[in-house]
Amino acid sequence: MDESMDPRVVEHARILARWSTDIKRGEMVIVRASPESHELALALTREATKLGARVMVVMESDELNKAFFDAADDQTIALLPKHMMAAMKEADVYIGLGAPLNTMTLASVDPKKQIALAKANQPLSELVLSKRWCGTVHPCRSLAQQANMSLEEYQDFVYNAVIIDWAAESKNWFLLKDHLERHKDIRFVGPETDIHAETGGRIWIASDGRKNMPSGEVFTAPIEDSVEGKIYFDIPFLYQGKVIEGVRLSFEKGFVVDYSAEKEQPTLKAVLEVDEGARRLGEMAIGTNRGIKRYTLNMLFDEKIGDTIHCALGRAYKECNGLNESAVHVDMVKSMARGKITAGNEVIYHAGKFFYDK
Amino acid sequence: MDESMDPRVVEHARILARWSTDIKRGEMVIVRASPESHELALALTREATKLGARVMVVMESDELNKAFFDAADDQTIALLPKHMMAAMKEADVYIGLGAPLNTMTLASVDPKKQIALAKANQPLSELVLSKRWCGTVHPCRSLAQQANMSLEEYQDFVYNAVIIDWAAESKNWFLLKDHLERHKDIRFVGPETDIHAETGGRIWIASDGRKNMPSGEVFTAPIEDSVEGKIYFDIPFLYQGKVIEGVRLSFEKGFVVDYSAEKEQPTLKAVLEVDEGARRLGEMAIGTNRGIKRYTLNMLFDEKIGDTIHCALGRAYKECNGLNESAVHVDMVKSMARGKITAGNEVIYHAGKFFYDK
Repeated sequence: MDESMDPRVVEHARILARWSTDIKRGEMVIVRASPESHELALALTREATKLGARVMVVMESDELNKAFFDAADDQTIALLPKHMMAAMKEADVYIGLGAPLNTMTLASVDPKKQIALAKANQPLSELVLSKRWCGTVHPCRSLAQQANMSLEEYQDFVYNAVIIDWAAESKNWFLLKDHLERHKDIRFVGPETDIHAETGGRIWIASDGRKNMPSGEVFTAPIEDSVEGKIYFDIPFLYQGKVIEGVRLSFEKGFVVDYSAEKEQPTLKAVLEVDEGARRLGEMAIGTNRGIKRYTLNMLFDEKIGDTIHCALGRAYKECNGLNESAVHVDMVKSMARGKITAGNEVIYHAGKFFYDK
Repeated sequence: MDESMDPRVVEHARILARWSTDIKRGEMVIVRASPESHELALALTREATKLGARVMVVMESDELNKAFFDAADDQTIALLPKHMMAAMKEADVYIGLGAPLNTMTLASVDPKKQIALAKANQPLSELVLSKRWCGTVHPCRSLAQQANMSLEEYQDFVYNAVIIDWAAESKNWFLLKDHLERHKDIRFVGPETDIHAETGGRIWIASDGRKNMPSGEVFTAPIEDSVEGKIYFDIPFLYQGKVIEGVRLSFEKGFVVDYSAEKEQPTLKAVLEVDEGARRLGEMAIGTNRGIKRYTLNMLFDEKIGDTIHCALGRAYKECNGLNESAVHVDMVKSMARGKITAGNEVIYHAGKFFYDK
């Protein structure tokens, strides 16, 4: 172990390599890191190498992306990144270590350009999803700042959510999955919210820290044209450098028929205009990680907050049997402290209590 | 341009993208960077993207390598990095941006492990050499420290060597190449030095900033079994974290038959024991960049110092028609202020003056 390294960084790396992605001898691992997550990349390289794998680290940062957006014309944005595709084809495991230098670097970039890049990169994104993959963050100053915390406080926040006994903690989440799959629909009711969707034939996934670290959500892809009603997302979220707040959506036959946002409505509009799939829900989900108690404008954590639900516009997960296709997948979160979740005739959750809570 | 960026970084990136590697629309570019060269990676991404290419940045650092060496057993070291190989196969251009966090990070690593890794990576190294590639450095604190300079002084040192009119400066170097190719041998004479080799059928290459930035050398691969005599390298050099000083080598029929070093002789011995090719010269060369006036323990610069020669143990460049094969290529430099270089009956250089000097 590096003498100067926080032992929690080493433990984080161990969880990623052993629990989340189960790295084995002879495997090829791709790690995505920014200059700010070099330390975690180090700990993870050491851990994966111990397990007999060969690690390649790809450097990404919002600054590199900004330089790309500043300089690229339409033809260049549309290029398939053949080198990255080829590397990913040979990889068994992909682990992303998010750690921005400045979370607002992309704030001034035209969302259309960002969406065009997401479209060009779609084959790559799909390839990643076919691997054993996990996304996490390394606590850094910019994320602490975004969360209104000092770096030290933010490190505690992250490691409290990450360094837990995943096998033990996730048992209730699998119970929840079983209950939801016994029914054929889901309904979220709360302030300014009453939304319903069919889920027959769809799979509910209990996310137990394999693909997201931390995790703690149970999610599905609703039947595309069955979503009806309205929903109010009271938790702000960041999309490509913009903080979107107070989103209201109304659905008929699965499509958004009315929308508004208290802040950044034009950005919400741009999302909805990406493609047809962006006007449908690709995901409906319940946040179950009660170790995460507040939002930090980081979806990896915010969608897992205990006693929340979230929905995503755009791409559905194929593992859920979802069919919705889109270049985007934009999650939005709603607190459910005063809400109710039902499935069929069963009350799954009401005002702070799941069926499994004592 | 990034408002906060030194305009010399932007110019460095322009030279790399336009002069050194001539990046064209639709090409795939791989950039190797450490956290310390993120700034140059940014400028280069912007420049390459302007030219219509798609850039992928691979993060490497001595720290990542140290973690690998600490954790890898023999089986893991011997793994072919299939992901990196696949990416490189799709690349048109490869640019390495050296910028260590600490030049001594690998000092305690067993040289045998480093050589085993070099062997495992040999197919990758050969693949890189088949591309349009260039190696450079981004001035950073560790390199400034190694060069006994402040960062500001070191930035001046680097940019004075890099930001020049390469087309104009390299004209004399091509003259030198022509003179050397008119003859069939080369001889370096100086203090404790008289070494001779045949070069008939070999190509002398005038290095004009395409593969190394900065550059300024004219080099060939001598006929393998023709090297005879002795040489004293008075300029110290760094090899895998060790500063080797005062190397003396004696050659018979191309092979090292006697050797010593004033400092780090065991490291020199380890190099010579890597394989048969490591006991032969793969390169003999003349440094021609008079913008570089002193050594900084960085071979990229040191082998280009004006009025020096250098030789490399190990792998020969195929572009020179060299045949020597080895897992290593270790350059050693000698000042020629009091020396003489002859080829056939022609004095190419004597005590500070090339034939082309007024």
